Amino acid sequence: MPAKALKIFSDLSADDGTLKLLKSGVAPHELLFPAKPAASVLSSSEPDPALVEADIAFGQPNAAAVLQASRLRWLQISSAGYTRYDTAEFRNAAAKRKLVVTNSSTVYAESCAEHALAFMLAQARRLPDALRAGAAGDSLAWLQLRDSSVLLREQNVLILGFGSIARNLIALLQPFRMHVVALRRKAVGDEAVPIVTAAGLPQALAKADHVINLLPANPSSVQFMSTSQFAAMKRGSVFYNIGRGATVDQDALLAALNSGHLAAAWLDVTEPEPLPPEHPLFSTRNCYITPHVAGGQRNELEMLVRHFLDNFTRFMSKAPLQDRII
Amino acid sequence: MPAKALKIFSDLSADDGTLKLLKSGVAPHELLFPAKPAASVLSSSEPDPALVEADIAFGQPNAAAVLQASRLRWLQISSAGYTRYDTAEFRNAAAKRKLVVTNSSTVYAESCAEHALAFMLAQARRLPDALRAGAAGDSLAWLQLRDSSVLLREQNVLILGFGSIARNLIALLQPFRMHVVALRRKAVGDEAVPIVTAAGLPQALAKADHVINLLPANPSSVQFMSTSQFAAMKRGSVFYNIGRGATVDQDALLAALNSGHLAAAWLDVTEPEPLPPEHPLFSTRNCYITPHVAGGQRNELEMLVRHFLDNFTRFMSKAPLQDRII
Repeated sequence: MPAKALKIFSDLSADDGTLKLLKSGVAPHELLFPAKPAASVLSSSEPDPALVEADIAFGQPNAAAVLQASRLRWLQISSAGYTRYDTAEFRNAAAKRKLVVTNSSTVYAESCAEHALAFMLAQARRLPDALRAGAAGDSLAWLQLRDSSVLLREQNVLILGFGSIARNLIALLQPFRMHVVALRRKAVGDEAVPIVTAAGLPQALAKADHVINLLPANPSSVQFMSTSQFAAMKRGSVFYNIGRGATVDQDALLAALNSGHLAAAWLDVTEPEPLPPEHPLFSTRNCYITPHVAGGQRNELEMLVRHFLDNFTRFMSKAPLQDRII
Repeated sequence: MPAKALKIFSDLSADDGTLKLLKSGVAPHELLFPAKPAASVLSSSEPDPALVEADIAFGQPNAAAVLQASRLRWLQISSAGYTRYDTAEFRNAAAKRKLVVTNSSTVYAESCAEHALAFMLAQARRLPDALRAGAAGDSLAWLQLRDSSVLLREQNVLILGFGSIARNLIALLQPFRMHVVALRRKAVGDEAVPIVTAAGLPQALAKADHVINLLPANPSSVQFMSTSQFAAMKRGSVFYNIGRGATVDQDALLAALNSGHLAAAWLDVTEPEPLPPEHPLFSTRNCYITPHVAGGQRNELEMLVRHFLDNFTRFMSKAPLQDRII
């Protein structure tokens, strides 16, 4: 006897090819769509009546509406970040209802890791200056450019936040023979690098040539990188943010960049986003900003749908889901 | 009985610390210096009378003067490239005299490999555009930037020239699970990747997403990358040059960039160097140029001297020298 057809709500703004992939992947189950599709994986959306009928939701549905949708058994968020669902209220209500929540961090982890290494190498090889240098020849400026370029090899790295981006980045850094440690609430023994907990953070900050922030935004991480944390960093070290902008006190970062305490900062995320064009971080000489594109990749929608379908197969066979967050 | 003190000519423009390292490293043997030190490792120098007395030379001495220096038994060139010594006349004369010639490729190989990967990742993550994008938010430009970013993972790479830079780069690319092949005159069996010889080149060019030119400049490599080689490359692929500018027909490259056949070129070397500011490669939208800095690294002089001293120890104990080229 075939199981009753499930109703799957998706507000992913998919193109025709991706939609076809999603439809055929869940068939014979039924897809439901919102009245107005969300503009992107990062925008928020209004509550949608179709959600109330759904057994499963995929995308970025309104958090309050998710809690009101009493049939819903599983929500897969189409991003790695999940700030809008990461509240005590949502977690408690979801747990009480046995609502399973997964995210798409597997899809973004490798891309974000490559973006982080692109930042590190661009900094080490002085790419922004070197690409502007033009015909420098044997000049003093040229000699200084060469002399200020460094090898990543054997430098010290501190990663803040140990999740799938960190795991991917650690793998990419492996051939550089860098000394990598990562901050995690508690070591669980499955990490490929030594784990630093809160107590060891000041020492780890003082030792690192590169501090790579991958922290998600939640009440305990807001402005985690504060004036005192930046002060604890080694003089001449570099700060990277591929996590969330809200985890950084940007005034403290500006001060650390302008005083020369930090050599540079490379940010893919800021608070707010988009950062207003007149924001002083944009005009700070040694601050390099990309506009939240670290997770971007050709075929991103297809990868999101494939990841959802993989979890859908697990869900239907009652297997544990990937990237479960609640 | 102690061996007779050797005379070691060095025209390296060393600072005080490096000079001290060199002096103490060769003691009790004697250092000889040119009347006028060379400006950098890449500049050429005039014949120097001190060279005539030397048993060993280290730096960038004039090639004709080297051949006239009849006592000379070993020359270590303080660069990776050695175009000015790479002539049939020099090779034959050196071989006849049993003059051993080494270069410093070990010093530059890791730095050049990191620079090449910095180029590849900057291209994949669209760094030049992303750093200029400012506050793009949910705009169409932002979506296009995300969608046009790619992962290096599983892409195809063709490396032209199999030496120490290639070996280092292959190691750095390993965690990306890319499909890497390398062009070498003849496979000798010690390569970590499949080798392509001249016969297989057109097919390899057609398959590669990234063509990385590491060829040295010599009579057989001049303008190796010609109109037909660029035409053989896959549409939308990317060309990188970390080797020597003379190995590329730059007019052919310009045409391939302007027609859109190549997505981009990243060049650390050009012909001539410095490239005149009005050269069209500078104003080509998808051409990114750094001014021969791939080998640059903090402590470069110290690394060069340490590499020379390592070979000096080998020379004194009659062990095979590293980076021997003749």
